[in-house]
Parts: sequence; structure tokens; C-alpha cells
Amino acid sequence: MANATVRAPVIILVRPQLGENIGMAARAMANFGLDQLRLVAPRDGWDVDGIVYQAAIDSAVGSNAIVRAARLYDTLEAASADLSCLFATTARLRDQSKPILSPSAMAAEIATRESAGQGCGVFFGPERTGLTNDEIALASLLVTYPVDPQQPSLNLAQSVSLAAYEIRKARLGEMPARTLEHVTPPASREMVFSFFEWLDEELAQANYFIPAGKRPVMSRNLRNIFHRMELTEADIRTLRGMMQALARGRRNRPGKGLSV
Amino acid sequence: MANATVRAPVIILVRPQLGENIGMAARAMANFGLDQLRLVAPRDGWDVDGIVYQAAIDSAVGSNAIVRAARLYDTLEAASADLSCLFATTARLRDQSKPILSPSAMAAEIATRESAGQGCGVFFGPERTGLTNDEIALASLLVTYPVDPQQPSLNLAQSVSLAAYEIRKARLGEMPARTLEHVTPPASREMVFSFFEWLDEELAQANYFIPAGKRPVMSRNLRNIFHRMELTEADIRTLRGMMQALARGRRNRPGKGLSV
Repeated sequence: MANATVRAPVIILVRPQLGENIGMAARAMANFGLDQLRLVAPRDGWDVDGIVYQAAIDSAVGSNAIVRAARLYDTLEAASADLSCLFATTARLRDQSKPILSPSAMAAEIATRESAGQGCGVFFGPERTGLTNDEIALASLLVTYPVDPQQPSLNLAQSVSLAAYEIRKARLGEMPARTLEHVTPPASREMVFSFFEWLDEELAQANYFIPAGKRPVMSRNLRNIFHRMELTEADIRTLRGMMQALARGRRNRPGKGLSV
Repeated sequence: MANATVRAPVIILVRPQLGENIGMAARAMANFGLDQLRLVAPRDGWDVDGIVYQAAIDSAVGSNAIVRAARLYDTLEAASADLSCLFATTARLRDQSKPILSPSAMAAEIATRESAGQGCGVFFGPERTGLTNDEIALASLLVTYPVDPQQPSLNLAQSVSLAAYEIRKARLGEMPARTLEHVTPPASREMVFSFFEWLDEELAQANYFIPAGKRPVMSRNLRNIFHRMELTEADIRTLRGMMQALARGRRNRPGKGLSV
């Protein structure tokens, strides 16, 4: 399972009930770069002409190739026979002496094992009933989500989505926490200072700095506001144009110098 | 928005199309401890007797109280008027000069702002079409998910689910990466060593250590296996019982001492 063309790990849905959830799980897998789906004994069959299969295809939207390529098994044992590490996702605490991982710890563990050439699978129980204790006993490790105990029951496809999301995060490394996508480069300090100088002079002409002794404080307060905005060059041009328009309007009006 | 009884931040669905997605978003919010839902102009109305509302109630399963309490607005401006920090979730990169955060960075930012008493909201665009540029312009910060560029379109409720999950992780702190839920306490080293001692002796009687010179290596290999299992007291009792049964069986059979 660990060759480069396989977008592992394998996602195994055990006795899933609704075609819609199978399809939405497939779409969620595709969102986060996975494409190996296995199904263990879907409750209402998996007939290519049947409504369960069709609902899955429809719900997968652009990812229905994953549904078409899904492999069908009678038992979880058969579905996981070629894998060497199995994770069971479960909301309830189980009386089984197994390590319980957070989703992000699971993802880190999968990354480690895959880089060592081990095939990994993550399996999910049916809607409502969840996995049986015998199914959970097949897992090497358990995974739980940090749900609110008042509403611990996750939608099946959302549960797959969260696992796939953490697996992708572990694979890509955490995104930069904060990136700036500027249309124009951030303004140089020189450009910002020159803007302030111009603005200061315009405001002085408009009698903004009253009383005059407060000018340093009032000017600093304004600078603080604009510095906080992390202005781009385009921002500065826009602001300067706007303020020039205000100043010009003032000069052309009778009450010039007082009404702005 | 920042008082203790409110399970903030606010989740705002802008022009949602399907009642099912509204309901599944509500359920996802409840899974991760949120309950403030606002709707901006649902495409097919929000009539309490209508099918959109009913589909939302049905899809929310145990969390339909959140659907019932959802507040309805005509515009995103109205829906966010009382909030001081707005996050727009978007898959596409936009030509807007705004910081772009990962979901976990968004969650950290929300935690910081909430502890400073600021009301926060996270808004999500409609299925398929997404947010307009004018809607995105209302956001203080943008959030993107680390999706596969080949299938970047997230299901609306899954998108809400991922945001709510990260918000809860930031609030709880990361779960311990790995916890052991033992039915019985882990075995003391003393108990493990005493088990090995007994096993060594049984194996010697069974003529397992052949040639005798290999005994130290063979014994160490076995110890390694059992140490790796992080055995509990119950595990040791179970293993010892099983091995005693094997040994007793051997002694009662004609080929005693050789056939195990």
C-alpha cells in the first residue's frame, strides 16, 4: 500500500447505512488528497444498479471516481488483510486496553508508518450504532475526536472529513499560520512616512491640530492607526487620493478651511 | 457576545441553499460545543412550515434546538453588526489584501479575541457559488483549508465542522496525543519480570532453548516482544493462564516435553 501512486491511507467504512454518507465521505477524501475507499457489507447492498450506489455517486459530486473504485468486502478482517496498521475511530470510550490517539496524533503516526513502508487503514463504524467491540479489537490503535459530551455523535462523512484533514495537515506540514496575499507589495516605510508628512501638512492647513500643543499627540494617534493597517503601496495611493479629494473639496467650498 | 453562557463564536451561513446542509452544520456545531447560528437570506426561504426548515430540523438530529434558535437576517452586514471580528472562509484565493489564516490559526485568533471580550463570527458562503467579493470585503481575516487543488470544493456542513473542530481544539488545548485507557493498571515491572522468570523455566522444561547456547538470545527476543506490548496486570494473568494451559496439555500428552 505504500507505493507513491497510492493516495493512502485506506479509508474503510464498516457496514455503512446510507449511500449519501458513502458519497460525501468520498468527496471529503478527495478534498484532502485520499482516494482508497473500502466498504464492508453496506447495510442495503452495493448493487451498481441500486439506489444506494446511485445515491453515493450523486453525493460524491466531482469525486465519484472514488466511489466507482471502492472495493467491497464481507468482513473487516478481509478489508484489512493487506494492511499492517489499523486505526478505529470511536466516540465512546471502550474497555479495551489500547492507546487512544487524537486525530492529529493519528495523522502523525500514519505519516511515520507510511514512511517506513507500512500500509495503514482507518475504519469508521456505521451511522448510529458504531463499531462493535469485536471490530474495535481488530484495531492497533483507537482514535477519538474532542467532541462535546452533550452531542458526541459525529456524522459519518464529517468524521471521515476530519480524519482526512488531519492526515493532509501532517503530510503537508502545518500551513503558515498567517500569510498575506498582497495584490501589490507592502508599502516601504519610506512611502508610509512620506504619506504621513503630506497628511500632517494638509491637516495643519485644515486647522485640525487644535490646540496646537496637542499636535504631537494627535499626529501620533493617526500614525498608529495607519501603521496597524499594514498598508500596501496601492492602499497608500488610494488613501492619499481620497484625502486629496476631501481637501480639494474643502478648498473649493465657501467655508474653506473649517468645514471638513 | 462574549459572556460565559454564549457558546461563541457565531457561525453565519450566507445564502445557504439546502436545508440539509443547514441542519448538518448545526449538528457539527453541537459536536464541538458551539450553538450560535445565523442565517443570511436562505435561497429557498426560511418558513417554519416550509420544507427547507423541516429538512434542516431533520438533518440536525439531536441538535435541532440550534436550528430552531437560528437568527435570520437579510444581509451579512445585519448579521454581523454586533460582532467586532469577522472571518470569511474561502477555498479560492482572492485578490484582497487581507491576512489568510489556516483553520487552526483562526481558532487561536478567536480564542485570543474572545478572552479580550470581542465578539467573533465565522461566515461561510453558499454551496457551489461561494461568497461574493463584496461579502469577503466585510471580513477582517480570511480562512482557507489545506485542500487538494484537484478537489477544493468542501461540503458546506463539513466546512463548518472543520472550523468548529479547530475552535474546540484551541479552547480545550490539544488533547494528549496518546492516552492509555487501561481496564486494569499497567503491570509493574516486578510482575512482568516474575512472569518472564516463570516463562523461561517453563520453556526450558519444554526444550524450547535449543541449542542451549542460544538461550540468552532467544529469551531476550521473547522479552522484547512482551515489553513492547505495554502489558497490564490483567494481560499478564491472561497470558500466564494461556501458557499454563498449553504446558499442562503438553504434560498430559504422550509426546510430553517435545510437541509444544
